[in-house]
Amino acid sequence: MAMLDERLVNGVMWLIPNALVLVGAHAGEEWNAMTTSWISQVSMEPVSVAVSIDKAAYTHKLVMDGGFFSVNLWSPDDTRVFVKFSKPATREGMELNGRRFREGETGAPIFEEAIAWFEVEVARTVDVGTHTLFIGEVVGVGRDPEYQGRAAGIDDTRMKYGGVKRH
Amino acid sequence: MAMLDERLVNGVMWLIPNALVLVGAHAGEEWNAMTTSWISQVSMEPVSVAVSIDKAAYTHKLVMDGGFFSVNLWSPDDTRVFVKFSKPATREGMELNGRRFREGETGAPIFEEAIAWFEVEVARTVDVGTHTLFIGEVVGVGRDPEYQGRAAGIDDTRMKYGGVKRH
Repeated sequence: MAMLDERLVNGVMWLIPNALVLVGAHAGEEWNAMTTSWISQVSMEPVSVAVSIDKAAYTHKLVMDGGFFSVNLWSPDDTRVFVKFSKPATREGMELNGRRFREGETGAPIFEEAIAWFEVEVARTVDVGTHTLFIGEVVGVGRDPEYQGRAAGIDDTRMKYGGVKRH
Repeated sequence: MAMLDERLVNGVMWLIPNALVLVGAHAGEEWNAMTTSWISQVSMEPVSVAVSIDKAAYTHKLVMDGGFFSVNLWSPDDTRVFVKFSKPATREGMELNGRRFREGETGAPIFEEAIAWFEVEVARTVDVGTHTLFIGEVVGVGRDPEYQGRAAGIDDTRMKYGGVKRH
């Protein structure tokens, strides 16, 4: 890579107004969910989504092992959840960090409070450096029929994610 | 894919609050830029970005041929530009749809009005169906030092992108 000014790279990358979601995963007897902003739909046919997950994250291991993940969209009125899920979650029964979930069709956790959600079956993994890009087809989808607003994005919080790796 | 309710898929995919940017490309004597919302950083080391582009788009051909693309972030106060760049752009000299640009280090167009921008050298292409995912390293970056605000996202407009392919 050309020598780039790291502060400038951070400043510009942090301007990208990504979504902010909880990505859930499940393998064996393990469940977890984590805050993620690097997510996008990538194809309309098949309807496919990609998420890029830090190789050091517990959820990375679970998606690798389980082969599925869920994406939980949230209301911008309750963004504390994203701070809490920035670290490995604490599970008690069918709760992660005190937030109730149920098993989706793929086994991945769907939160009761999510305003909408979908489940993805991983079709391809791409090693992109610090992260792995998981690409897959949407195999399940749902939403809260009462909810009328928009979904939370990273600009609804003071969180920043991305830029250069801190050493 | 499991049989999913297309209306539900559309409704949920349209809730993902993606960024909204102009992706520029250049090959030979051809230049273009297009509105794109399927973009995300995907790795911190190397600093990498992915964008998913419709195979039928003119910009798709240019990125394939040129091997580079630019990403231009914009102010939420001027979102008309995104409607305009939803179709192939008209070029006159160093203007696309009447918006002045210059050549970046990679040759890809950088718009004078962009609040921040970066250039990506494509390292990998992944055929994901209707779209190709272009993944590459950030090799150039810059921003308007005067601009203090946030960057435009799709929720700043009435545009919707994604969901299922219309037949």
